[in-house]
Amino acid sequence: MSITLQQILMDTGSSYLGSQLDLTITKASTLNDGDSSSLGFLSNPKYESQVYSSHCGIILVPQDFKLKEPVQSELLYHPNPYFAFCLILTKYFNPNIHNSGYEDGCFIHNSAQCEADYVGRNSYIDGNAKIGKGSKIYPGSYIGKGAQIGENCIIYPNVTIYSGTYIGNNVIIHAGTVIGSDGFGFAPVNGKYLKIPQIGNVIIEDEVEIGSNCSIDRATLGNTIIKTGTKLDNLVQIAHNVEIGEHTVIASQTGIAGSTKIGGYSQFGGQVGIGGHLVIAPHTSAGGQAGITGNVTESHQKLTGTPATDVREFLKGVAGSRKISDILKEMQQLKKEITELKQSKQK
Amino acid sequence: MSITLQQILMDTGSSYLGSQLDLTITKASTLNDGDSSSLGFLSNPKYESQVYSSHCGIILVPQDFKLKEPVQSELLYHPNPYFAFCLILTKYFNPNIHNSGYEDGCFIHNSAQCEADYVGRNSYIDGNAKIGKGSKIYPGSYIGKGAQIGENCIIYPNVTIYSGTYIGNNVIIHAGTVIGSDGFGFAPVNGKYLKIPQIGNVIIEDEVEIGSNCSIDRATLGNTIIKTGTKLDNLVQIAHNVEIGEHTVIASQTGIAGSTKIGGYSQFGGQVGIGGHLVIAPHTSAGGQAGITGNVTESHQKLTGTPATDVREFLKGVAGSRKISDILKEMQQLKKEITELKQSKQK
Amino acid sequence: MSITLQQILMDTGSSYLGSQLDLTITKASTLNDGDSSSLGFLSNPKYESQVYSSHCGIILVPQDFKLKEPVQSELLYHPNPYFAFCLILTKYFNPNIHNSGYEDGCFIHNSAQCEADYVGRNSYIDGNAKIGKGSKIYPGSYIGKGAQIGENCIIYPNVTIYSGTYIGNNVIIHAGTVIGSDGFGFAPVNGKYLKIPQIGNVIIEDEVEIGSNCSIDRATLGNTIIKTGTKLDNLVQIAHNVEIGEHTVIASQTGIAGSTKIGGYSQFGGQVGIGGHLVIAPHTSAGGQAGITGNVTESHQKLTGTPATDVREFLKGVAGSRKISDILKEMQQLKKEITELKQSKQK
Repeated sequence: MSITLQQILMDTGSSYLGSQLDLTITKASTLNDGDSSSLGFLSNPKYESQVYSSHCGIILVPQDFKLKEPVQSELLYHPNPYFAFCLILTKYFNPNIHNSGYEDGCFIHNSAQCEADYVGRNSYIDGNAKIGKGSKIYPGSYIGKGAQIGENCIIYPNVTIYSGTYIGNNVIIHAGTVIGSDGFGFAPVNGKYLKIPQIGNVIIEDEVEIGSNCSIDRATLGNTIIKTGTKLDNLVQIAHNVEIGEHTVIASQTGIAGSTKIGGYSQFGGQVGIGGHLVIAPHTSAGGQAGITGNVTESHQKLTGTPATDVREFLKGVAGSRKISDILKEMQQLKKEITELKQSKQK
Repeated sequence: MSITLQQILMDTGSSYLGSQLDLTITKASTLNDGDSSSLGFLSNPKYESQVYSSHCGIILVPQDFKLKEPVQSELLYHPNPYFAFCLILTKYFNPNIHNSGYEDGCFIHNSAQCEADYVGRNSYIDGNAKIGKGSKIYPGSYIGKGAQIGENCIIYPNVTIYSGTYIGNNVIIHAGTVIGSDGFGFAPVNGKYLKIPQIGNVIIEDEVEIGSNCSIDRATLGNTIIKTGTKLDNLVQIAHNVEIGEHTVIASQTGIAGSTKIGGYSQFGGQVGIGGHLVIAPHTSAGGQAGITGNVTESHQKLTGTPATDVREFLKGVAGSRKISDILKEMQQLKKEITELKQSKQK
Repeated sequence: MSITLQQILMDTGSSYLGSQLDLTITKASTLNDGDSSSLGFLSNPKYESQVYSSHCGIILVPQDFKLKEPVQSELLYHPNPYFAFCLILTKYFNPNIHNSGYEDGCFIHNSAQCEADYVGRNSYIDGNAKIGKGSKIYPGSYIGKGAQIGENCIIYPNVTIYSGTYIGNNVIIHAGTVIGSDGFGFAPVNGKYLKIPQIGNVIIEDEVEIGSNCSIDRATLGNTIIKTGTKLDNLVQIAHNVEIGEHTVIASQTGIAGSTKIGGYSQFGGQVGIGGHLVIAPHTSAGGQAGITGNVTESHQKLTGTPATDVREFLKGVAGSRKISDILKEMQQLKKEITELKQSKQK
């Protein structure tokens, strides 16, 4: 694979001040690792110095980038260099060479409607399931009775999708993830727990991506819903009847307890815990390990800590705790002074 | 499926003051989502107002419920309406239509004793394993050498049960869960780690339910034990030689470190961490994200925070931290006053 | 299996002061559970009293162990009794009786180079994958295109290894683990998220052990790397482009965010969170649930809390928070005294 500088200009709409239109690259690299046949990019200004030391043949830089030192690379200017870099990666360097066809040893129930492009060996598609055009079902994945998967989805190996789950179009689900397992609902009766049947479903809308080894439970009644464009990292827990708004990003090992509704365009760091039966406003963001224990009524808040509070409050709290030993010392000093004042009065 | 009001009275033992015994429902719903053919229920008093706005045909309400406004529904009175609702769900609306029979492509070693009701394709039952009557082994599950599974168990897809694991009767294990993997034990020797063979087992007693993608390790010596009626949510970690008492409930993403013994009838929120080699009294409860770092000797405590303390202590601490900036301000004021007192003396 | 005391002396290099060289044991036990045919050991001095009450036939004790009471057991002295115990366990009591051979229903692509000792039913080895001598691939595992696995590795059931992953020799990977899934990288474009192709790989070096249900993502560019001898517990998350140094130990449910570099010989407790783009010095240790939010530049630190600080600082902070109510009381007292002083002056 050999791509000319001119081709990159055409694919990305970058601007270029030089004349080496025939310069070619053959790979994509970080600024530090690249050589003269690499395409690199600068997005975060804190890595600017790497532009000057980089050996990359071509570097995508921000539109307003001002050169402060000489460089060894040809610079292409773009308003969003990371985006431009992604365009090139996606077009020329995507390593996912997917399989096609229906392999021996896959099982498709005769009442299923399967238009998938690939169904791997040892996968299992049960009765009345529907799978749309262009979708790929990798080996070892299980699609339960009546589950629906839209078009152009990728279900990686060893995924389990329980009966009745609904999945839209262009959804990616990574290996080992489980969707539609029973919600965690038990009624205490005489010191034991009676299982509450979980008769609801899961709805995953279009363009959602779900990482590996996630667990998404079916609703008790109604639906657990993950809306359009939302992205889940690995090992994320979504309990029964949760609703997650559109274009939300949830990092690894975060858990959301039952019946909570998350507004769209939110962002959660890793290992965040969100309590049950809460309503979280759109555009909420929460830092890693935050524990959200109450409703978030105002949108665009940045939360941190447990119980989660606004970041500025939290930092005051941390700074405060560190001042406690100072406070104790000062208090001793004040006591001493007061005692002296009293004694001097008595004299 | 059409169920009359009279049938619900008979199935649940509810009391009813009206006369519409022939009224029928065809589904179960939440109070908000229901229509005239829905059965709903009120359990948590904070949702009482939904009873008045609900369109459900029939609503199960608490025995002592007092009507404050007119309703559109027939009301059935029961001491535990959620329990009564579960009885109806379980009897008429259970969506788990399970498979039966032994499918092509399942593997049962000729030394295994398998009386299971269902063994799915691509499942694997190794030598000397025993599986009791009425149990169901879904596709892609693996049962290791000499593992025992009792009667009427459900092993969902892609579960891995290592050799020697013992599972009682009426146990449910959701997809992707791993039971009997090696405990995390290594002896440091000259800056490297020597693997300590994990030669113990796992015992899962009757009526236990385990969520999806959990990891339960085998013991180094002896057994890791989960006692009767205990329920584990998804993504829970149980380390080697842990013992969990009966009828305990553990929410998602909680982890229990090696050799800890948890008393029965305990309740743990999500993302709780419990240290190793601890003894936790029965009837302990801990809130989400709590970190339990020491023994809990007194039963019936409610713990929270890290290191976990009694909930009331914790709230004092949180309230306290938020007062630090007030304290600092007051301190300044006191200092000023003392200085003034001193100066006035000197004058 | 019957092993004489003399055989244990020869296998472990222990020293023995008695004469019962023909005494035999048939099992390994804890000090509390053992009987006259058990081998036990004492490693942690806090369990010393168990030596005096133990019924074990033979006990391995530290070289410098001083008897304070009579014992019922023969004592063998060794500088590292746990290590010696492991040697005996590994040699005589290892329960992992592994399968061999290529089972019906396994799939090996004709362009793969497979010298494995065992390939289980329902496993899938895709094109150009390489698997070395003595390695074992259990049922339901998936090895993607061009992935390489070295010699004497064990891949337990239902593991997913994505294309291009490189795994060294003597590596153990427990059930349900996923290696090489896409890193969590999305570029925000007009309020939506554009998927950034993850074209890098994962490198797992020799002697690494990875627990069950872990998720290890492939790099965006370059490699995610886990170095020689490192051990990961269950449900651990390793994000794209992370590097973990050699002989590091990471307990269950810990997560490491993207591009962070962890120095060798480090130790992390359970549920630790480590932020992205950090550099952590070698020999760092962090307690359970710690949240590491900044670089750790000095090696050999012991961290705890969130944001993680040195253990001693943290304990001061905790002690401090508990003093806040005392501070508030004392403050009231000081105010009162100042008021009295002022009043007495005015008189």
